[in-house]
Amino acid sequence: MLGIMNIGQPTLLVDSERVKRNIRRMAEKAKGSGVRFRPHFKTHQSAYIGELYRQIGIRSICVSSVDMAEYFADNGWDDITLLVPVNWLQIDRINALAQRIKLGLHVESVATAVFLAERLKHRVDIWIEIDSGRRRTGIWWEDIAAIERVAAAVHQPLMQLQGILTFAGQSYGARSRDEAAQIYDNTAAIMARIRSDLAAAGFTNLEISVGDTPSCSIKEALTGIDEVRAGTLVFYDVMQMKLGACTEDDIAIAVACPVIAKYPDRNELTIYGGAVHFSRDSIKLPDGTVIYGLITTLNNAGWNRTVEGCFVADLSQEIGAVRVSRDFFDQLNIGDVIAVLPVHACLTVNEMGRFTTLDGQTHRIMPRRNDAAFPG
Amino acid sequence: MLGIMNIGQPTLLVDSERVKRNIRRMAEKAKGSGVRFRPHFKTHQSAYIGELYRQIGIRSICVSSVDMAEYFADNGWDDITLLVPVNWLQIDRINALAQRIKLGLHVESVATAVFLAERLKHRVDIWIEIDSGRRRTGIWWEDIAAIERVAAAVHQPLMQLQGILTFAGQSYGARSRDEAAQIYDNTAAIMARIRSDLAAAGFTNLEISVGDTPSCSIKEALTGIDEVRAGTLVFYDVMQMKLGACTEDDIAIAVACPVIAKYPDRNELTIYGGAVHFSRDSIKLPDGTVIYGLITTLNNAGWNRTVEGCFVADLSQEIGAVRVSRDFFDQLNIGDVIAVLPVHACLTVNEMGRFTTLDGQTHRIMPRRNDAAFPG
Repeated sequence: MLGIMNIGQPTLLVDSERVKRNIRRMAEKAKGSGVRFRPHFKTHQSAYIGELYRQIGIRSICVSSVDMAEYFADNGWDDITLLVPVNWLQIDRINALAQRIKLGLHVESVATAVFLAERLKHRVDIWIEIDSGRRRTGIWWEDIAAIERVAAAVHQPLMQLQGILTFAGQSYGARSRDEAAQIYDNTAAIMARIRSDLAAAGFTNLEISVGDTPSCSIKEALTGIDEVRAGTLVFYDVMQMKLGACTEDDIAIAVACPVIAKYPDRNELTIYGGAVHFSRDSIKLPDGTVIYGLITTLNNAGWNRTVEGCFVADLSQEIGAVRVSRDFFDQLNIGDVIAVLPVHACLTVNEMGRFTTLDGQTHRIMPRRNDAAFPG
Repeated sequence: MLGIMNIGQPTLLVDSERVKRNIRRMAEKAKGSGVRFRPHFKTHQSAYIGELYRQIGIRSICVSSVDMAEYFADNGWDDITLLVPVNWLQIDRINALAQRIKLGLHVESVATAVFLAERLKHRVDIWIEIDSGRRRTGIWWEDIAAIERVAAAVHQPLMQLQGILTFAGQSYGARSRDEAAQIYDNTAAIMARIRSDLAAAGFTNLEISVGDTPSCSIKEALTGIDEVRAGTLVFYDVMQMKLGACTEDDIAIAVACPVIAKYPDRNELTIYGGAVHFSRDSIKLPDGTVIYGLITTLNNAGWNRTVEGCFVADLSQEIGAVRVSRDFFDQLNIGDVIAVLPVHACLTVNEMGRFTTLDGQTHRIMPRRNDAAFPG
């Protein structure tokens, strides 16, 4: 029982049944395509959610910081890819991780490959990161000479060249499901060509790893790849829904927020719930409206369908402005609690730091920098 | 000594000398204008920074959550205004605070005034919040009848009507220093008129409290008010600098971030430092460029002047993309540490959770929801 009446401040709710359904769906799709599912754990940062993955047979994961790798290694995960360019200044902690788990690293330059060859003390898997269009990190996909130079700089025996990896984050800009699916197909084709070029240059048996939630959710089969790393699918969010990557019924998180003021002249509610709870990610609707979340009500078993025409219109540090329909405005009083479906699951979970499942149990995510349990 | 060589991950640096200069300047301006300085402590959330205020004689503060009020009450602050609409669901904690400190509350509706009259157990100061143009919270300034209704609902003896209060946050949209100063003058004029209307209706001896950092920094004298509540001035940031509220030399925080990748084809560096360190606040420059921070280098005593033409262009969860000049690009190597002056001090400090002063001491801010020291 959720016990809604006890929610006095912004509270992140997680529907574990939806989580289980979301991750099972991707695991089955991956299995049907003969692909390894290596979910990105940055979305939840939670040992509890990790267990739900373990229950469906997942054993390999990826993370986006050394802190996270250590946290999940401490929680029994022993096959972890660190999915950001190697931070040279953390080489001692990386070596300590490589000693106790199967660690995958991400290399996108000869300089970093040379650094690792000099400084590694334990065996790691190396993934060469390809920039397949997102223009964030990785070697530009057309620069096959640079890709081969990095491959040649990956030195045995401590560095095992495992494959090529990309994050096709441009799918977040797709204007339709077809466009997102097209991005998947283009990415797989690019990666296949690079693998074949590398094979011709003597780098054989390489795997292909891809990882954005939108295109991997939209595609019915994950053809042409060996590993899928999507992470946001565990919870999904309003951004994924707008991209057509999920339905509203797949969204597995909501933030319960008290109503603290009402403004009848503009059908606006003020909620306790702001940038320190949701971060500041937003999406722009086709009509130009910028929204920070969608709105619904709570029931004793969870939350209801979103209310038409209601959204978070602005976020200050601790409070938010919610634009609502006249009907919804009239139904609500100061002191009521409403629910916000967040625009971006990863940052909301990171901000909130803990969540309550619908059985009323509270679970902390990994310690933050400020946490008393976190080293100096 | 800063010991820059030991910075291996994003680290928030605070220049305490600049902090002292910033807060002394506002304290002196307030004193010269015969105005009480009640700084907003949401910007720093830190007992250590609070002590710097105490050393210059500040005794009254404001905060934006009950959590923060409790934290600062625990750290010896006994005159605190809670600067968000009252969250009815936290009335027990509000009563507990009112029992031990001089607590100011923020009322903007008859409903909340009636609620407080019924539920308060200890004496509090009441400030009626006026919306002077920001359109966030408060009673619209022209609706004097509504303002009088709320004043009439403030019942003695536990509710002491102290004054009228506004946050002229529209100054964040000012396109020049003159425009920001004009917003201050308009706000003071609006508030004076409301005070005089209230006096005519029998509500006498009310104070006027205003609080945005841009206009209060730009004005040379704080005329026409009784209390100034600005908070961001403690650190300032790139947003305040662009508004003309401070110079670069006033900015008292920077985030040291390791360089983890270099992209010569687009003069771009990847840093370890992302949305979980800076939040996602940005500003748009006149030419349309969106920036998330400015860039500089570190020295053993702190940080240098920002480097022309260099800025944070994008933030992912854990990493950032930094656009730099060719010269600066060539000077830097992977493994170097650069410094980012953040766009928004409050959210960056909140994200980072702790900071290091230039003498090398680390200070935690108040516990987060996730903190092991934070109640369930």
